Amino acid sequence: MRQLKLSKAFTLMESGPVVLVTTHDGKKDNIMTVSWTMVMDFTPLFAITTGEWNHSFSALRKHRECVIAIPTVDMLDQVVGIGTCSGADTDKFSKFKLTAAPGKVVRPPLIRECLANIECKVIDIVNRHNIVVLEAVAAYLDTARKEKRTVHAVGDGTFIVDGRRIDRRKMMACKLPYGV
Amino acid sequence: MRQLKLSKAFTLMESGPVVLVTTHDGKKDNIMTVSWTMVMDFTPLFAITTGEWNHSFSALRKHRECVIAIPTVDMLDQVVGIGTCSGADTDKFSKFKLTAAPGKVVRPPLIRECLANIECKVIDIVNRHNIVVLEAVAAYLDTARKEKRTVHAVGDGTFIVDGRRIDRRKMMACKLPYGV
Repeated sequence: MRQLKLSKAFTLMESGPVVLVTTHDGKKDNIMTVSWTMVMDFTPLFAITTGEWNHSFSALRKHRECVIAIPTVDMLDQVVGIGTCSGADTDKFSKFKLTAAPGKVVRPPLIRECLANIECKVIDIVNRHNIVVLEAVAAYLDTARKEKRTVHAVGDGTFIVDGRRIDRRKMMACKLPYGV
Repeated sequence: MRQLKLSKAFTLMESGPVVLVTTHDGKKDNIMTVSWTMVMDFTPLFAITTGEWNHSFSALRKHRECVIAIPTVDMLDQVVGIGTCSGADTDKFSKFKLTAAPGKVVRPPLIRECLANIECKVIDIVNRHNIVVLEAVAAYLDTARKEKRTVHAVGDGTFIVDGRRIDRRKMMACKLPYGV
């Protein structure tokens, strides 16, 4: 995986792909599936909504680190599987045959099979809304990977695969931040 | 446009389409383009990130209402155009040939040309992160519309169009909320 400029990391998230989020609770790694995410700044900052009902939440709150890993369409059954069992009784890396790879900054692992990985620090938790605010500290993209299409959760059990890409860079030039 | 059950409204947003958000400042309607959005609950609650730099923000803060309108790929140039000019000096409904239609609950208008519209109340603003928390109060879907593909902003001036849809409803059954 090639390191990606932090100023480009928000472009991995803005289109709204379903993501995997890894945590480490001091003893073991875990993974959760999240589609309730939002870009908040180009710096980049991200929000995710999660809470007590999620086994990963206590690790996130206590250790204040995670990795956002971005899977592609060929990994959909793993993504759905991870989202429908709990780290309380399952080693998800083992069950879903995923490879934990060390990051550079945070303890939770990257997922080697994913298209991209973003190491994040938890910089705030807005308790009244269960919003966890993350700041990216390192990002990686697997440029050698053939399958690059991400998947978008509709929320009713169906998923939309990335279709074609349309270029409006000229029209948008005045709005694009430096470094994109 | 047909009224949609509120329990299904989050499915319009969870996949992360770029959306249009209408406001009314007491005198006139305005529209902004937003791709920094997040589902927060099935009730449904949504978050958007915006702030002082945005002309719509003062109307949002003062009048505490908006409509999230969901455009499709055939409207992309309008979506980009709306995102690259300001309501401070532009009547966007007129410039982009969009039709303001009255909602049932809030004052900001629906956009008739859009695939879906969600009337929302602002229920909180998390000032330290520029997060506006919205609760949907009514939702509509244009079931007669042929083009249903939404568009996802990458953030670099390119946009990903919805591709094919994959069904994992059986695998997800244990996680789907009632009413979806």
